[in-house]
Amino acid sequence: MNMPIETHDPARLDIRLRGFADRAPLAQAWLWLDAVGAAPRYEVVAAKDAAGRILGENITTPTDLPPVDLVLTDGYALRAAATEGAGIYNPLVFTVSEGVPSDVSQPALAHLVSAGVELPPDCDAIVGFSAVSRIAGSQMLTDRLEVLDAASPGDGVAMRGSMIKAGTPVLTAGRRLRPSDLAQIAALGITQALVWRCPRVGLVIAGPKAQAADGLGPMLRALIVRDGGIPEGGIAPEGSGVSLQAAIAAAAEADIIVVAGRSGAGEDDVAAISLAAAGGTLEMHGMAMRPGSSSGLGILGTVPVILLPGDPPACLSAYDLLASRLIRRIAGFSRQPPYRIVTLPLRRKIVSAVGFTDIVPVAVSADGVTPIGSVDRINLAAACRAAGFVVVPETLEGHPAGEIVSIHLYDPV
Amino acid sequence: MNMPIETHDPARLDIRLRGFADRAPLAQAWLWLDAVGAAPRYEVVAAKDAAGRILGENITTPTDLPPVDLVLTDGYALRAAATEGAGIYNPLVFTVSEGVPSDVSQPALAHLVSAGVELPPDCDAIVGFSAVSRIAGSQMLTDRLEVLDAASPGDGVAMRGSMIKAGTPVLTAGRRLRPSDLAQIAALGITQALVWRCPRVGLVIAGPKAQAADGLGPMLRALIVRDGGIPEGGIAPEGSGVSLQAAIAAAAEADIIVVAGRSGAGEDDVAAISLAAAGGTLEMHGMAMRPGSSSGLGILGTVPVILLPGDPPACLSAYDLLASRLIRRIAGFSRQPPYRIVTLPLRRKIVSAVGFTDIVPVAVSADGVTPIGSVDRINLAAACRAAGFVVVPETLEGHPAGEIVSIHLYDPV
Repeated sequence: MNMPIETHDPARLDIRLRGFADRAPLAQAWLWLDAVGAAPRYEVVAAKDAAGRILGENITTPTDLPPVDLVLTDGYALRAAATEGAGIYNPLVFTVSEGVPSDVSQPALAHLVSAGVELPPDCDAIVGFSAVSRIAGSQMLTDRLEVLDAASPGDGVAMRGSMIKAGTPVLTAGRRLRPSDLAQIAALGITQALVWRCPRVGLVIAGPKAQAADGLGPMLRALIVRDGGIPEGGIAPEGSGVSLQAAIAAAAEADIIVVAGRSGAGEDDVAAISLAAAGGTLEMHGMAMRPGSSSGLGILGTVPVILLPGDPPACLSAYDLLASRLIRRIAGFSRQPPYRIVTLPLRRKIVSAVGFTDIVPVAVSADGVTPIGSVDRINLAAACRAAGFVVVPETLEGHPAGEIVSIHLYDPV
Repeated sequence: MNMPIETHDPARLDIRLRGFADRAPLAQAWLWLDAVGAAPRYEVVAAKDAAGRILGENITTPTDLPPVDLVLTDGYALRAAATEGAGIYNPLVFTVSEGVPSDVSQPALAHLVSAGVELPPDCDAIVGFSAVSRIAGSQMLTDRLEVLDAASPGDGVAMRGSMIKAGTPVLTAGRRLRPSDLAQIAALGITQALVWRCPRVGLVIAGPKAQAADGLGPMLRALIVRDGGIPEGGIAPEGSGVSLQAAIAAAAEADIIVVAGRSGAGEDDVAAISLAAAGGTLEMHGMAMRPGSSSGLGILGTVPVILLPGDPPACLSAYDLLASRLIRRIAGFSRQPPYRIVTLPLRRKIVSAVGFTDIVPVAVSADGVTPIGSVDRINLAAACRAAGFVVVPETLEGHPAGEIVSIHLYDPV
């Protein structure tokens, strides 16, 4: 483990024009990111609006489901035993009854029923319309019916509790609610759900820098929403009369602070000293990753702070490998960014540097995967052209052509 | 091809208590769904809000990118040729200049620069801080500098147009905009984007039916949003004093109408005749799929209408295989529902019926895939317990245990 930076020594803190003395390996950053920040908080929301939210408690069935013996298919309800031997050449005649039969010992009674109603008493099966002979020229109820096929007990019905017994856990805490879960929750008679609260992410754009300035905010806001966070702020202090220090301090209302830009070792890279001036401390500054090596991790009060580089492709990689992990954990999501992973052969070698985790953009074709550009010269256009990226761990010098590698794909299915 | 249903014959239209005479194969339904409905429509939105939207036109670079020779890394800009032979034991001395040198023929000039600024004239490389000797005890600019490593032309710089030449297509029509695309679009100086308009989906809940009634609307709204549509309405006429016919007629303002519930052959299944009473026609009613066999496809005016069953798991399957396809196409999305597909061995056989496309919910474990329940007895709890589903085509009687099958996974990554 690297020692925390001694932030009370301004000369030590200010890495401008000197570069990073050492760089934290990604594994160390992840340990820190997995331990820092608030405990999960919950909120109660209308169940009908809870799609995509993370369930904060188990949902169990309050009653048997179905709560009664339920008709599942349209047709005639009857006692299956009474249809024994029925067939095309042996039609069995039933009396159609609309009410409850007065004489329940009379077996050959059939009840016209629709899916969703309670099974009439003394019945245990439904015979569909295709298995009965209909009266020609009439669609109305008839008081006689010929059954042309034998039924088995349970045909077309769901007995009370056969779907779920009362008290059964149906949806467990930590589940990301699917659209169909909303139907399940409603079917249980539940109208509210306890879900993980979406973390508020205070976003400070410490730019503008070069031509990409106005794009960082929209990119990061979309990524934060993807990861279950609520982006707030997005203040670009430069030119607004607000100091970067004040903008960072204002973001401390949130659960997590993300500062994008001004994180490097140039003379205008004031993110780290502005955080210190706002009362924060940096735990790590400089990451053994490319791009994104100027990223930093720190604390302001009790709020975790992530410094991201201002160059958009570096900002994207650093967001995905650092900020995303923290936001997703606090949101109750899985920690990995939500990229599909596929494995394909490399069409050209990837050269990497031992000691750095490299995030290499790649194009994907039917033949395999081709790296786009080199990792220290990634530009935005290459990042947009990439179908995804390959992560080369710090222990490797790269991958030879022909090797099967894992690709994180940017686009959803 | 089946003949269209002759909708002017009320007896032919009303399948209640008679069942479906024939059922349309899914391939026929898809042909219809792929041809019906409005041509794509577009709208102009603020580029910063366009994440996830489908681009309606190519975006090309209006200018070279970078528009000037650009410094990519913090350090000293100089002429690379002048560093030839530099090394730890052969430091080469440069004069640090803050302005443009008056004598450009003097090569040993270095300019302190930050990433993102324009490269000073007559320079072609950046030397980082780690490759120069610094003056001890000072972090301020110095007028002398020892370069300890030879640079190559292009080190740490991006020459004008090296990222993109003016007129190059950067993002092509039909692309679903990623978060990083917003940064790219902003970098091009573009503030508005032409995107596919999200189709309005008029939702009519023709219920309530059994205990699941209130859940259909929330489920379908979440699914429609997932597929790029805007759900509108969600009227449940029953008990509201609005007739189903009036609710369907009111939904004709939308681009697509989805009616959930009352689609079957029971006596209360009035979706089809209500559509006819509203002036619509049914092209197909009854699908060779399980669950979801009571689904229907039709037209009201020029608006495609999809009838879905009211039983939630059947409604989900029919939505995913029918409605999703149409909504996604009109939204500019790929036609397949956005489920990841994985292939795994079956732990237990799946029995299916020739002539029906079966959608079988399955549990997934490390050992493989296990079907949950049988396809004609799917209940909501089983659907929630399922990790995904296997589609058994109508030509197959099922899959034997051990066979490798494709599973559509419900949850995102």
